[in-house]
Amino acid sequence: MRLSELSEQSGVPVATIKYYLRERLLPPGHRVSATRADYDGTHLRRLRLVRALIQVGRLPVATAREVLDHVDDDSLGRTIRLGAALWSLPHGPDPDDGAPETAAARREVDRLLDRLGWTSVRETGELSPVHRSLVAAVATLLRLGYPYEDGYLLQQGRLMYQVAVQDLDMMETYPSETEQVESAVVATVLYEPLLSSLHRLAQEEESARRYGL
Amino acid sequence: MRLSELSEQSGVPVATIKYYLRERLLPPGHRVSATRADYDGTHLRRLRLVRALIQVGRLPVATAREVLDHVDDDSLGRTIRLGAALWSLPHGPDPDDGAPETAAARREVDRLLDRLGWTSVRETGELSPVHRSLVAAVATLLRLGYPYEDGYLLQQGRLMYQVAVQDLDMMETYPSETEQVESAVVATVLYEPLLSSLHRLAQEEESARRYGL
Repeated sequence: MRLSELSEQSGVPVATIKYYLRERLLPPGHRVSATRADYDGTHLRRLRLVRALIQVGRLPVATAREVLDHVDDDSLGRTIRLGAALWSLPHGPDPDDGAPETAAARREVDRLLDRLGWTSVRETGELSPVHRSLVAAVATLLRLGYPYEDGYLLQQGRLMYQVAVQDLDMMETYPSETEQVESAVVATVLYEPLLSSLHRLAQEEESARRYGL
Repeated sequence: MRLSELSEQSGVPVATIKYYLRERLLPPGHRVSATRADYDGTHLRRLRLVRALIQVGRLPVATAREVLDHVDDDSLGRTIRLGAALWSLPHGPDPDDGAPETAAARREVDRLLDRLGWTSVRETGELSPVHRSLVAAVATLLRLGYPYEDGYLLQQGRLMYQVAVQDLDMMETYPSETEQVESAVVATVLYEPLLSSLHRLAQEEESARRYGL
């Protein structure tokens, strides 16, 4: 299809598509003459992903390009490719190594992962920005003097594992590895806020059941 | 204790405490003479909550005061008091009633809540800002042309309900109703990022188990 049709089908203005092409967020069309390029379903799918990252996820253009570069890198094994794409998405703050609570937080997180039996992420450790955010969040609890509830986190961790199994099952319904990695990125950007709303609504429901309205 | 001791025990500078007192985020001390007021454990606990809201949750002062007013309002029933405190915390965007996908998103959310059997939140409906955020998130999915995966959300909703049961069980370990509502606010501000990190780490673990490293 022509650029104008791509714009029509995607609902993205031609000028915006041209900007995405210049910024290498969208691969160039297949050149059919000196003045015309042809676009296909791949472009339509990528355009949808770019909008999800930039308009909904509010990623800066450079970060979005980094995510997409990992999505497209089929030289990597699937776990690494998935990890690289998801790790380049925005995440919580890193732990503050100068703070006295950080060492205690690291011990708590190690112990929690051991009890959960999550041996791979225990090994990858703070290579993962998600692991680092977890340490930072625990350190914040400790710094403010709030109790670190390890029994609670153990139970919630087990439930989150079941949530993750559903996530990967959904991902595997997509045919190609590239589409699977794309779907994981979309899930993190678009479905995570949805799960977070479901969590809070479940609290409201359970509160009404326990205490009435 | 004196103001200087409150500062020492909480780690919050005297000037900051005075600011919180002026802004009515902290109740005044018990006046013991014209120049001296006495502070106790309630002030220490409230100071910790104010720091969680302002320093970690990054709430504007006016929003923090609104949350605390609901926490302190013991004229309300527990569900309403809890709801009022949590609803005044920041949440996702409201649905755009001008967008053509919003009506379809509303139908999907109603159907999901019916299938989950969450009758109370189904009834409260969009009075809850969390419910509105859910509708907005589904509308965004539809607008971008991503599939709305209702089987997936049904399963995740059921898991989130189990997560919420743990949340309320933890809340009920606190002795007074005020402390319970405080703990729910703290959980939303400090524990939610932690659960979100656990969710993503669980995905990394499951990915390594399925596809190797």
